[in-house]
Amino acid sequence: MHAVDIIRQKRDGGSLSEEQIGFFVAGVTDGSIPDYQASAFLMAVLLRGMTDQETAWLTQAMVRSGDRADLSEIPGIKVDKHSTGGVGDKASLVLAPLAAACGAVVPMMSGRGLGHTGGTVDKLESIPGFRLDLSLDEMRAALASVGVAMIQQTARIAPADKKLYALRDVTGTVESIPLICGSIMSKKIAEGIGALVLDVKVGRGAFMKTETDARALASSLVAIGKASGVRTEAFLTAMDAPLGRAVGNASEIVESIETLKGRGPADLEELSVTLAARMLVLARLAPDMREAEARVRHALASGEGLERFRRMVARQGGDPRIVDDYGLLPAAPGSHIVPAPRAGCVVSLDAFLVGRASMLLGAGRDTATDVIDPGVGITVRAKPGDRVAVGDAVLELHFRTDRGLADAARLAASAIAIGDAAPPPSPLILDEIL
Amino acid sequence: MHAVDIIRQKRDGGSLSEEQIGFFVAGVTDGSIPDYQASAFLMAVLLRGMTDQETAWLTQAMVRSGDRADLSEIPGIKVDKHSTGGVGDKASLVLAPLAAACGAVVPMMSGRGLGHTGGTVDKLESIPGFRLDLSLDEMRAALASVGVAMIQQTARIAPADKKLYALRDVTGTVESIPLICGSIMSKKIAEGIGALVLDVKVGRGAFMKTETDARALASSLVAIGKASGVRTEAFLTAMDAPLGRAVGNASEIVESIETLKGRGPADLEELSVTLAARMLVLARLAPDMREAEARVRHALASGEGLERFRRMVARQGGDPRIVDDYGLLPAAPGSHIVPAPRAGCVVSLDAFLVGRASMLLGAGRDTATDVIDPGVGITVRAKPGDRVAVGDAVLELHFRTDRGLADAARLAASAIAIGDAAPPPSPLILDEIL
Repeated sequence: MHAVDIIRQKRDGGSLSEEQIGFFVAGVTDGSIPDYQASAFLMAVLLRGMTDQETAWLTQAMVRSGDRADLSEIPGIKVDKHSTGGVGDKASLVLAPLAAACGAVVPMMSGRGLGHTGGTVDKLESIPGFRLDLSLDEMRAALASVGVAMIQQTARIAPADKKLYALRDVTGTVESIPLICGSIMSKKIAEGIGALVLDVKVGRGAFMKTETDARALASSLVAIGKASGVRTEAFLTAMDAPLGRAVGNASEIVESIETLKGRGPADLEELSVTLAARMLVLARLAPDMREAEARVRHALASGEGLERFRRMVARQGGDPRIVDDYGLLPAAPGSHIVPAPRAGCVVSLDAFLVGRASMLLGAGRDTATDVIDPGVGITVRAKPGDRVAVGDAVLELHFRTDRGLADAARLAASAIAIGDAAPPPSPLILDEIL
Repeated sequence: MHAVDIIRQKRDGGSLSEEQIGFFVAGVTDGSIPDYQASAFLMAVLLRGMTDQETAWLTQAMVRSGDRADLSEIPGIKVDKHSTGGVGDKASLVLAPLAAACGAVVPMMSGRGLGHTGGTVDKLESIPGFRLDLSLDEMRAALASVGVAMIQQTARIAPADKKLYALRDVTGTVESIPLICGSIMSKKIAEGIGALVLDVKVGRGAFMKTETDARALASSLVAIGKASGVRTEAFLTAMDAPLGRAVGNASEIVESIETLKGRGPADLEELSVTLAARMLVLARLAPDMREAEARVRHALASGEGLERFRRMVARQGGDPRIVDDYGLLPAAPGSHIVPAPRAGCVVSLDAFLVGRASMLLGAGRDTATDVIDPGVGITVRAKPGDRVAVGDAVLELHFRTDRGLADAARLAASAIAIGDAAPPPSPLILDEIL
């Protein structure tokens, strides 16, 4: 079997066999297939697609490329949530402690930012001392003690995905349903969960720009989860404007804590509560959504969610004082206001452009080796629906050096649309796919 | 400008700007764009295509990646010919000395064999002492003295093509008209010519299997040549059966010399004379094809073409006695006859299979590092249209060791089709694209 023949077969629109997919994934994992062949393959898959059967084989081959966690000694159904990526989406940081406070066991393995979107790993790394590189044993112990652990993909979990994901980011091969499915589900299946809630983002700031594409991705993800014995459900949620007001790394930690203190933006709180409640239902910890939501809201109001977050930070080596003293988190010294060019109502705030602008400031990566700056980012000072006078701050850029500032300011300005009337109300949660 | 944005734009079917293409080619050349991004780009180009304008920019960027020969101190329009590759196609070796004998200046830069096809560089290397690695200065001096020089691509000519070509071979991205065009034309433009005749092969033994594909390639090549100030015309010629009777390296040198002595196969002589005549017209050395052909035929009959060949060999360090003593060229000791399985008329002789068989004997390469054997090859003993009795030799395999012989013999036998009646006459030159 030759890698180039497999590439050519996919290039010409053919379906691959389980053996061919297994050969390719194993070759990527052990390095016998070089990056330049892998990236040509990824582009061919993106443009030619894969059948559901091929996608399932791809996912299984990626699970087999590493270890699969055994969490059976911890009682109950282990449950996780995964988002397909957005701008300002820090819901994981809010909902995982809330779900844990309600009795769920949440072994959450997260990724870094991808393209214009942020990543939970990058955000948590802004907490001084916080360790994301727990071994599977350490994760098991943390789960038994706190009920939630947030780790990054270890070298032994789906190493094939680790290599392919890094390549996809820099080769324009992110937006492929089979590749997204394989990447997400291989890691989730390998982390040893029994239930999974998916947050499939739709809109300008999401990888899926249309509801049709997002629905197709959600269906594919749900099908692969179920085929692997994981109780899986998906929400389609809007990602046209940034979620909440903070876009960046340290600033999103702050906003998550604020939300756990009951002072967060309404959209972030609504999404976090809904997803956490669904996790409780799928983990059989609540009989229905009404009961589940009530319990999550109680954990929020009582401060139990915040307390879990604090314990998680401490357990994973982070400084828990950050919960009360945000000054312990990194911050960028510079501030640049992007003003409203006219009076009126903010009708839209393009999440893609805001995400790209934040990336240019240093909050995200352009190449896999770029180092991010946890202190930079963007604050949304006026959200869609807010009225502004001419010159009012709509976005505030937090920067450390001038590098990239002019381009970021230009992008940020182009993200803002102001009209005379308020935009029609648009739902955050669009649909649920069971 | 970011490589990944350029890849994404092409992936989504967009057209690229001159600046974007220039940025990408320069990055590939200096190594700032890694192979894995280059190969994703190549796959996107293969599957999404390029406009003629993009292809012209690609070609020009590849020319700029290295040196461009300045032949202006040699008077007259410098003219070359390029073939897209066939089996037994040694026309370059015949027509270049003929054109030079008629006053043309022919700076011919050639390649090695590719897949089942032969390459002029490999053939000339079978002449003891012959140097193909002339510097541009040495080439200029040889042209001023002999009128023809045959060299291989130097490291300083179109280095971007050299890198992209090596990647395409192993990433399934060879069969793309814009990439083929860019590769061919960048080298030709860089060698400093003012006119170019293209021989675009069609058929079983060519890379373009259908006349539609070949015509598209020819049109694109001609358009790029003209856009770059090179007077360019293309012939579509048949490549269903091997050209001439010799397939191999040293044996093709012999057949070329025999043709220059007026004793060559009719098809090879016809093609060489036609292409050489067209070169004279394009270089403004003859007013029309009738006059040009008469002059080429005179150079052939008078032995002036042969004399140029002899001088070229001597000038480039080769042993000119090979012209009179073929025993000075390498030859393989073994001979294996592939007989006619029945009496009748040879109706076809599949050039692809003959080429592959010759490659298996050691005349070509399977991977870039394989070493070829100049003495092995195949002689066509009965061409399409020839009548044979059962057991008559149709093909003769010349081999050095048993390695590959059985497979080569099997392939060679499967190349032969014998019928009752002679096949309808099929033209060698199918069309001309101006």
